[in-house]
Amino acid sequence: MELNQVKQVVLKVKEKKPLIHHLTNLVVTNFTANGTIAYGASPIMANAVEEVEEMVRVANGLVINMGTITPEMVTAMEKAGKEANRVGVPIILDPVGVGATTYRTEVVKRMMDTFKPAVIRGNAAEMAQLAGIPWQIKGVDSVGEGGDRFEVAKKVVEKYQTVAVITGEKDIVTDGERTAVIANGHPLLSTVTGTGCLATAIIGATIAVEEDAFIASVAALTYYEIAAEKAAAKTQGPGTFAAYLMDELYQLPISDIDTMAKIEWVKK
Amino acid sequence: MELNQVKQVVLKVKEKKPLIHHLTNLVVTNFTANGTIAYGASPIMANAVEEVEEMVRVANGLVINMGTITPEMVTAMEKAGKEANRVGVPIILDPVGVGATTYRTEVVKRMMDTFKPAVIRGNAAEMAQLAGIPWQIKGVDSVGEGGDRFEVAKKVVEKYQTVAVITGEKDIVTDGERTAVIANGHPLLSTVTGTGCLATAIIGATIAVEEDAFIASVAALTYYEIAAEKAAAKTQGPGTFAAYLMDELYQLPISDIDTMAKIEWVKK
Amino acid sequence: MELNQVKQVVLKVKEKKPLIHHLTNLVVTNFTANGTIAYGASPIMANAVEEVEEMVRVANGLVINMGTITPEMVTAMEKAGKEANRVGVPIILDPVGVGATTYRTEVVKRMMDTFKPAVIRGNAAEMAQLAGIPWQIKGVDSVGEGGDRFEVAKKVVEKYQTVAVITGEKDIVTDGERTAVIANGHPLLSTVTGTGCLATAIIGATIAVEEDAFIASVAALTYYEIAAEKAAAKTQGPGTFAAYLMDELYQLPISDIDTMAKIEWVKK
Repeated sequence: MELNQVKQVVLKVKEKKPLIHHLTNLVVTNFTANGTIAYGASPIMANAVEEVEEMVRVANGLVINMGTITPEMVTAMEKAGKEANRVGVPIILDPVGVGATTYRTEVVKRMMDTFKPAVIRGNAAEMAQLAGIPWQIKGVDSVGEGGDRFEVAKKVVEKYQTVAVITGEKDIVTDGERTAVIANGHPLLSTVTGTGCLATAIIGATIAVEEDAFIASVAALTYYEIAAEKAAAKTQGPGTFAAYLMDELYQLPISDIDTMAKIEWVKK
Repeated sequence: MELNQVKQVVLKVKEKKPLIHHLTNLVVTNFTANGTIAYGASPIMANAVEEVEEMVRVANGLVINMGTITPEMVTAMEKAGKEANRVGVPIILDPVGVGATTYRTEVVKRMMDTFKPAVIRGNAAEMAQLAGIPWQIKGVDSVGEGGDRFEVAKKVVEKYQTVAVITGEKDIVTDGERTAVIANGHPLLSTVTGTGCLATAIIGATIAVEEDAFIASVAALTYYEIAAEKAAAKTQGPGTFAAYLMDELYQLPISDIDTMAKIEWVKK
Repeated sequence: MELNQVKQVVLKVKEKKPLIHHLTNLVVTNFTANGTIAYGASPIMANAVEEVEEMVRVANGLVINMGTITPEMVTAMEKAGKEANRVGVPIILDPVGVGATTYRTEVVKRMMDTFKPAVIRGNAAEMAQLAGIPWQIKGVDSVGEGGDRFEVAKKVVEKYQTVAVITGEKDIVTDGERTAVIANGHPLLSTVTGTGCLATAIIGATIAVEEDAFIASVAALTYYEIAAEKAAAKTQGPGTFAAYLMDELYQLPISDIDTMAKIEWVKK
């Protein structure tokens, strides 16, 4: 039953082609725009303080990614986030590298006082930082094992009243009530910059068409990571993998979810 | 006869390797720089207000693309545009997303009071906005059918004393006197971000070596879209298509214009 | 014997996975981040003045690339460079386009008064500019033949107390005492934007694990250019070449250095 829901949600993205406003980092701008299109949505990447509110009002979803924040970008994010909340446009936050510097930690705190995301997606270290649980961080990448990832996800849900998504070898998605663990994906994903950011963008495109942000997040991640598995099967290195990943996001038959999805519904 | 002219113009780019200064958006910087090189020209992407005028003076052409404008970038564009006009460096303007926000509409108006482009290229909605003709806009993409595209192109020519290029399934190029309709291209172009911006960049490289901006625009678009057709024949998705598009821009034999060009010369 | 050292140094990067902080240009951000990962290191691209010093302190190396400098970016570079010197994090400088505008010439002068790089890598024209030797520049690309490249390299070493790397058809690496000429590489490298910047990034990742910056630079360049040769053998154009280059950087067997390296040790 849930698998049918997952498939329906992905199909809805491809049918409705939602318009997704991105305030994202300089490293992945092109990659996430292309991934958004390949998946079936339409990206806007405008980031001037002068126009972000107006852009948000015509958008169906908002992606906020902290990868290369500057004070100007943070102002744009706060304006856009606030307006998105006001007009009911769902937000996904990617707290890239939070905890790596004092600046990032302060910025994310201030942003969380300004607007409320429907979903927060990060790696274990970033999410642990948001949850206030100690975790080792190396630059913007999560390393080591740290504490219990389920506990981290649960704390993030409680603290921010959001769906929490922790990606890694296995992904955890939870809204506090329901939890899913997704075991799809491929090691080559970690050899291309921005594949985490693209996971965020794909979820952002999906919550734009599906109000149930838990199901939307599970559906988006599952589809994305099956696409990665199929892309990986065609290649042996990160360069061609990145190209095939776009191809697969574009053409992956929805029926592959039936045969390839590895979702464990921990609690219903 | 015109087809020979088209071929000669493209060959001139590859022979003269003009230096093209780009003031462009964050999403397509890498993609348009690579496309410019593959086509046979040399890109400079410097955008500091402190140096744009000096860069323009050593360049053979200037590309101004409004995709992710900020006030600082607009200042750089105005300085560069003014200097380009002064020293006779031809400008192409890509009014990305104009009409989508008040800010963009005001910026383009101010820029058009500051410098004069030799060519303006946009989709139907953007060009209709410039022409003052109502058209439906969805984010930065043109949707729906709106009014007559020839009328829009004609109005842009009259209002801005420029060559107008409207790209879409069929492209319209006109200088008011002469008009061409190009039916080359491929649907995969719309699955990769920045393919419109790259069309602009390719035209920008071509008007840098050919004073007749009408013929230059027709030649550039035809070559670019034949390259897209050949790239599409090698792939089934946007990721590999984008890579093959660069390959084709680099290696496409000029004689393919003879066999593949679909140009209708509406009026001579 | 030196070839064994070269191989050991490259293996050390892949084993230690150093964290490399990049303050680089907008054109190559994604490409150099991906190249850094493929090579075996970990990139951070954060560039806010508010956090660069803190990022530098957790990094193992710092890459400073002047491609699209703005005053804010220069401030971030100076802060990061100074802090890197203070805490012993090795810096590589890529003086992109120096000499092309007065602004760039002034900025590089000021930066060289603020911090000291372990390596400077540029094309012949950029390095000649740093050395104070006249050379023809066309935009950000080096053209023509100019003076003697060995003399240029030697002057840069003397003036800045650094290892000098001049890339071109043949590359020169020298620390004043030792000099190597590397004849690997492929013409397709010049058809993709940022391949010079990526050479800088690869060297930057290598000096992060090997204190002998001369050997590190030779090792990094040799490995990178052999990867380019192998990538070129699989393709005929710049788009697919760029993808295969990443694949090769990721998977190139270290033993290929034995069979393919073309290093001439000019002076021991």
